[in-house]
Amino acid sequence: MEMEEISVTPEEMQIRNLGTCRIDSPVKNQTGIRFIHDGEQVLYDDLVSREANKGIAIMGQVSLERAGPREKIYFDPAKVRVGIVTCGGLCPGLNAVIRSTVLGLWHVYGVRHIYGFKYGYEGFVARYGHDVVDLNPDVVDGWEDLGGTKLGSSRGHQDPEEIVDCLERMSISQLFVVGGDGTIRGAIKIVEEVQRRGLHTTVIGIPKTIDNDILFIDESFGFQTAAGAAVQALDCAHVESKGAFNGVGLVKLMGRYSGFIACTAALAMSDVNFVLIPEVPFCLEGPGGFLPALKRRLERRRHAVVVVAEGAGQTLMNASGEIDASGNAQLQDIGVLLRDRIVDYLKKSGIRSTVKYIDPSYLIRSVPPNSHDSIYCLQLGHDAVHAAMAGKTAMIVGRWHGLNVHIPMSVTAKGRKQVDPGRPLWRSVLETTGQAQWFCDQD
Amino acid sequence: MEMEEISVTPEEMQIRNLGTCRIDSPVKNQTGIRFIHDGEQVLYDDLVSREANKGIAIMGQVSLERAGPREKIYFDPAKVRVGIVTCGGLCPGLNAVIRSTVLGLWHVYGVRHIYGFKYGYEGFVARYGHDVVDLNPDVVDGWEDLGGTKLGSSRGHQDPEEIVDCLERMSISQLFVVGGDGTIRGAIKIVEEVQRRGLHTTVIGIPKTIDNDILFIDESFGFQTAAGAAVQALDCAHVESKGAFNGVGLVKLMGRYSGFIACTAALAMSDVNFVLIPEVPFCLEGPGGFLPALKRRLERRRHAVVVVAEGAGQTLMNASGEIDASGNAQLQDIGVLLRDRIVDYLKKSGIRSTVKYIDPSYLIRSVPPNSHDSIYCLQLGHDAVHAAMAGKTAMIVGRWHGLNVHIPMSVTAKGRKQVDPGRPLWRSVLETTGQAQWFCDQD
Amino acid sequence: MEMEEISVTPEEMQIRNLGTCRIDSPVKNQTGIRFIHDGEQVLYDDLVSREANKGIAIMGQVSLERAGPREKIYFDPAKVRVGIVTCGGLCPGLNAVIRSTVLGLWHVYGVRHIYGFKYGYEGFVARYGHDVVDLNPDVVDGWEDLGGTKLGSSRGHQDPEEIVDCLERMSISQLFVVGGDGTIRGAIKIVEEVQRRGLHTTVIGIPKTIDNDILFIDESFGFQTAAGAAVQALDCAHVESKGAFNGVGLVKLMGRYSGFIACTAALAMSDVNFVLIPEVPFCLEGPGGFLPALKRRLERRRHAVVVVAEGAGQTLMNASGEIDASGNAQLQDIGVLLRDRIVDYLKKSGIRSTVKYIDPSYLIRSVPPNSHDSIYCLQLGHDAVHAAMAGKTAMIVGRWHGLNVHIPMSVTAKGRKQVDPGRPLWRSVLETTGQAQWFCDQD
Amino acid sequence: MEMEEISVTPEEMQIRNLGTCRIDSPVKNQTGIRFIHDGEQVLYDDLVSREANKGIAIMGQVSLERAGPREKIYFDPAKVRVGIVTCGGLCPGLNAVIRSTVLGLWHVYGVRHIYGFKYGYEGFVARYGHDVVDLNPDVVDGWEDLGGTKLGSSRGHQDPEEIVDCLERMSISQLFVVGGDGTIRGAIKIVEEVQRRGLHTTVIGIPKTIDNDILFIDESFGFQTAAGAAVQALDCAHVESKGAFNGVGLVKLMGRYSGFIACTAALAMSDVNFVLIPEVPFCLEGPGGFLPALKRRLERRRHAVVVVAEGAGQTLMNASGEIDASGNAQLQDIGVLLRDRIVDYLKKSGIRSTVKYIDPSYLIRSVPPNSHDSIYCLQLGHDAVHAAMAGKTAMIVGRWHGLNVHIPMSVTAKGRKQVDPGRPLWRSVLETTGQAQWFCDQD
Repeated sequence: MEMEEISVTPEEMQIRNLGTCRIDSPVKNQTGIRFIHDGEQVLYDDLVSREANKGIAIMGQVSLERAGPREKIYFDPAKVRVGIVTCGGLCPGLNAVIRSTVLGLWHVYGVRHIYGFKYGYEGFVARYGHDVVDLNPDVVDGWEDLGGTKLGSSRGHQDPEEIVDCLERMSISQLFVVGGDGTIRGAIKIVEEVQRRGLHTTVIGIPKTIDNDILFIDESFGFQTAAGAAVQALDCAHVESKGAFNGVGLVKLMGRYSGFIACTAALAMSDVNFVLIPEVPFCLEGPGGFLPALKRRLERRRHAVVVVAEGAGQTLMNASGEIDASGNAQLQDIGVLLRDRIVDYLKKSGIRSTVKYIDPSYLIRSVPPNSHDSIYCLQLGHDAVHAAMAGKTAMIVGRWHGLNVHIPMSVTAKGRKQVDPGRPLWRSVLETTGQAQWFCDQD
Repeated sequence: MEMEEISVTPEEMQIRNLGTCRIDSPVKNQTGIRFIHDGEQVLYDDLVSREANKGIAIMGQVSLERAGPREKIYFDPAKVRVGIVTCGGLCPGLNAVIRSTVLGLWHVYGVRHIYGFKYGYEGFVARYGHDVVDLNPDVVDGWEDLGGTKLGSSRGHQDPEEIVDCLERMSISQLFVVGGDGTIRGAIKIVEEVQRRGLHTTVIGIPKTIDNDILFIDESFGFQTAAGAAVQALDCAHVESKGAFNGVGLVKLMGRYSGFIACTAALAMSDVNFVLIPEVPFCLEGPGGFLPALKRRLERRRHAVVVVAEGAGQTLMNASGEIDASGNAQLQDIGVLLRDRIVDYLKKSGIRSTVKYIDPSYLIRSVPPNSHDSIYCLQLGHDAVHAAMAGKTAMIVGRWHGLNVHIPMSVTAKGRKQVDPGRPLWRSVLETTGQAQWFCDQD
Repeated sequence: MEMEEISVTPEEMQIRNLGTCRIDSPVKNQTGIRFIHDGEQVLYDDLVSREANKGIAIMGQVSLERAGPREKIYFDPAKVRVGIVTCGGLCPGLNAVIRSTVLGLWHVYGVRHIYGFKYGYEGFVARYGHDVVDLNPDVVDGWEDLGGTKLGSSRGHQDPEEIVDCLERMSISQLFVVGGDGTIRGAIKIVEEVQRRGLHTTVIGIPKTIDNDILFIDESFGFQTAAGAAVQALDCAHVESKGAFNGVGLVKLMGRYSGFIACTAALAMSDVNFVLIPEVPFCLEGPGGFLPALKRRLERRRHAVVVVAEGAGQTLMNASGEIDASGNAQLQDIGVLLRDRIVDYLKKSGIRSTVKYIDPSYLIRSVPPNSHDSIYCLQLGHDAVHAAMAGKTAMIVGRWHGLNVHIPMSVTAKGRKQVDPGRPLWRSVLETTGQAQWFCDQD
Repeated sequence: MEMEEISVTPEEMQIRNLGTCRIDSPVKNQTGIRFIHDGEQVLYDDLVSREANKGIAIMGQVSLERAGPREKIYFDPAKVRVGIVTCGGLCPGLNAVIRSTVLGLWHVYGVRHIYGFKYGYEGFVARYGHDVVDLNPDVVDGWEDLGGTKLGSSRGHQDPEEIVDCLERMSISQLFVVGGDGTIRGAIKIVEEVQRRGLHTTVIGIPKTIDNDILFIDESFGFQTAAGAAVQALDCAHVESKGAFNGVGLVKLMGRYSGFIACTAALAMSDVNFVLIPEVPFCLEGPGGFLPALKRRLERRRHAVVVVAEGAGQTLMNASGEIDASGNAQLQDIGVLLRDRIVDYLKKSGIRSTVKYIDPSYLIRSVPPNSHDSIYCLQLGHDAVHAAMAGKTAMIVGRWHGLNVHIPMSVTAKGRKQVDPGRPLWRSVLETTGQAQWFCDQD
């Protein structure tokens, strides 16, 4: 698990509440459930420095509020009306999250008015004309095994005023938002609009990112499934690379700002020779560059597998002037660029080769969750419900050090989790691929 | 199974022999094996027309020589030296075919000199400098579960004289060639050169095509595996299409001249709405065209899945002048063209939509064979060995009506198997998708 | 494909019709569909003997009526009421067959009254109190990917009079029965009772058997899927056997009378050393027996994998008096017996060993169909519908030589398809395992 | 993650070292690697109690030494001779652990003498006559994808003196032991014998348990893979249960003392109705017992899925006198007992039902590791090597709160990790199944 060095104060980590919880939780009726108190927290940093024969002291540390059922809740389950929406790109487990949220509301708290909004934030805006789906245990039956989202999704923001208009019209007091960082930023605006109007509506986020780049979260749901699917693409690339003389299998994987999926998939199979990620800039040419290293590998072993994260090498592209400066730098596709540069370089170097380029993106993100992610989604949905019922708002649920926790939306929006080149994940990648730590123009 | 109406005479179907078989097969020592005689044949056409209360009569029919061990063989196993080569694109089962050929030679006949030539026909040509691999049961152990080809492959022809030079130098008297139609045409030239020199070298083909387009063969090895892998891509396309408002999942599958993989994969899952194949020309616009039909589907159901074989719509592209006439018509990519035309058409029609284009080709052809194809590869390799040992040459092994048979190379080179729009496969596609039989510019 | 030498006359192969077909098929309205005539038939035996320079002649041959849509039909789709029932043990593809039958009736012919009877033949008998399920395309949506049967099943017969009472009460004129040989025998009795009452009710069977032992059928639906699942169990047995010194992995597979699944699974992976099937009797002890052969294998390689079909070795068990003669011979479990005998024999022989016994039956038969079987089920269901609409009765649909055909129930009830020890399937097993053709007490 | 309340002092958590590390690590030559210092530790308990507006203070806490490369090492890589052994039952990832240990030794430290001992501790004892396997990167190539252990395994102890004799004879100074709690107890005895002789031999354990019951470890390698495989068996049980009227699918899963695999697999699919584990005693009969609850479930839904861990209900069996007290209590099979009791009870209650019993054990433990476990095994092997090279001994490597750590063997031997009925895992099981917290004879 990589941990960021970000500056967050314990105060910033506090979860906002809509008000005092005065209602007894219906969970109480079941035996054997241990309630969680807000004071139970998980240390953000559990790495300590222990000197021989001395104790350890930690003061003023940041910790995260633990998720789970509270003894007293804020909302009256009989009167609560709930909305659920999924936004942004697909990710394994979306339907499982919807389902477990519905089951938690219905079975644990007895909520009976649950609405699915269709096609992301569009679903709240009248002019799109999307209908609303009544959700209950029968409707969501079997969704845990389905890829994609049965509610549909869309990208992009909608006017928070229109969204809150819709929530008011429908008397919705709990909104569950499943989406990525853009979606969470949208949710923050909804929270602000809710506050401005003095409404008692909670907004709870369940963070979704196939890139696994959310701060304060061990691993986002669907990530393991996606990494496993990516391994299949790498296997194919390896087979293709060995099927031709000087065969190069080049695979572009997701990861706009973080190379987690590229690193993880590369570690999970043993035949990747080069991993290029956004966090580690690289040069293509020059004695220490990537292309000469690839050439040497081919001369030695006659095939190579290269994995590149979609966000890798962006500075390179700008710096080298390889793209026009007219603002469309973001449209540059590192996979295609790399393929072309490899073909050119090897040709110029007099190396006959066959380069196979594989871009499996949709095939990775639309598969159903594996059993690990199924359970994770189940528990995220339940914990989101517990948080909402307790009147917490402006927060997301996630897992930290193996325990589910609450994180303020404002804190997750502070940055992105990235692969740290000095830590174990990247170290394992270097050990496994045998690639150089850096590809630079100097040797 | 689709059957072509080609004109082949019984004489053309006869298998050439290098000479009289005088050596007792070592298979004889094993009990319980029934030998096959050359006269045992499988009818090409087993469809008969039976009138009530009458018999049936068939005269002058074409039939195919059955594969299997012969009682007398031509070659002395102790002295035989064998070459194996894989050519062309990857296909599930290549390694399994190599392995079963080696095991059949080694265990059944006691052959001890088996060489794998690397990187296709290049492997015979001195100037490429490829080494030769000694093959034996230990070396090929476990290959049945590997995708790709451990021998490597290459495309394109090499000079038959240089190839036969190599065979002569290495005293190779049995050559097993695993490859597609181009490879078989190359093999025919090797046979001719062998004859010209008066050599007693047999050349046996094991036909490989992921397109399943070989005449006189029920189904080529690896086809079922590839179709199964294609289904996964279609599942993803379906999930993506439902994940967005008016989502369109467009998948390009293999099939340069024949739509078997597109039709088969589409039938194996139930959510494909349009299948476009090379055998059925189609128009894009006009009242009866594909694009208006797609638009109607979206208006009705808000998502659609489209499968297009890579060779579909070629005439359309030429006829419409959409590509420059400068000879590079073959470079046109129907998948990309279709994606662009769909996006344009829907935009012009005022339909907001999201089109996801998936091109999974390498991910389909490089997977390991499923259990059905594993067995098929096992039996093809063994039967190729039986044929070679009996001195047969210029032939391929294949399966017809469920029985393995011998087919002259000259006959398979006569054409290609294609989907017949009047027969059950296409009928099932129409029934399942509900699409129109033809998309034409008139309604 | 193994072919039985059974005596069937062309007359016996004729399909019975309820009456003359006078109604135009609604299929007619769709373009491009080629109708099938009853005279189009597939030769049962397409193996011919061709002498050099002579033609071939076939007279008086048995052939099978081809399946598919007829131009004229017997039933009026607007008035037809249909029943579907699944009986006996589970098999991959049951739900897919139900679904394709419903879709064929609904979409192709416009039938609107389709009832699913629950829990096999029990579903027709009042005293069980099972409800009836209305079937339509919405209800069966997604069933193609589900293992098992959504209608439930049961074993055993019910009184044909009660069944036909129920059909009469509900005015059902087409009954589709999905089941094994016992179920088909039950269907024959229903047909007889229908005739006795002079009803115009057709009964069409879709034969289900995981043992693949139905006469006149290349391969029954679900068989490939089941064989693929069995391979996974064999892989585990192989891993277990290598994980211990003198490890023996013993797997019992389905196959009461026919060893198809055992042979097929054994061929699909390369590490099975012994295959024991009902068709090939074997001795355990004595110089040529199985146990000494297993011992020799262990001494040579230190591990072994054994596959036994559940019906294998029955005569052995009786002959040796190992079971009491009081009629419960059918309860003897060859897997457990073999395990105990192996353990005893190796112990007595002073061989330390570890025997792992695996009985995966339910794990094989309840999985969803693979893509090959999905398509096969789709086409079987459609062809069953075409046959019923044309007024054919007392028949099953199946595939012969790759084409779907009609087979009279009375003919399939004549016997069972079995592995022929003289033909290619068993030959391949012997070649692959290297086991002796026979294990007998003499060497 | 469940955490035990065990009493361990910080002193007990200290890792023993063979001596001072004076040799520069060869890892030093690679750029970008951050060394780990022994003082870097992970807090055992990172749950804190935070009062509003106050800080947190932790004193005298237990923490775990972090794994990873040390700057100075104890052994001279050029002279080190290494032994690796796998013991006990199979578990997914054994071969991957062997491989990564070999690769870490060979590539990172340049060790060239690595020996695999065969068939567990037997491999060290002369009278068994097992050979030793030379291990190097070529030999272990591809092992990461193989189930089982290529070195073979065995159960049971061997005389530590004979084992250390063998280590001395072969001059082995690093021994890597992959095995479960019995194996670790054996390793502790080896360590003691090594000390007694004053040898400088390190013994490092890599803990293996499919039951996931090792103290101080988040999750043992192979556990996720095994849980995923168990889900397939539960899916089959669900399909079977719905395929019959009042169908009951009963699955026995691993778990002698801990129900992790049963709970995890049950959560990963949504159709389990009852989970019985060793940690939660239960009654069969009486108003609050399991059997009446099962009966009520059948009456309501007509099918049920029951999962039982192999160690569940042991006290019940003793208490009820169902087994003789003659010491063979451990032979009692709860799966078979439960099946028989269910059948009897339902029969007596007048409920027609079909009970399908599935015992998939070998099919779960012998599969290859999934991508998550592949990476975990890779890192465990590397970290075991780092620890050994630094002269640490009598310890195991594991993961705590997402970071790899060192744990003294003596501490892990203190007890077992178990499912805590008051914590989130069991809470999720109750929420998902809807079963009662306890089945007791009183209501």
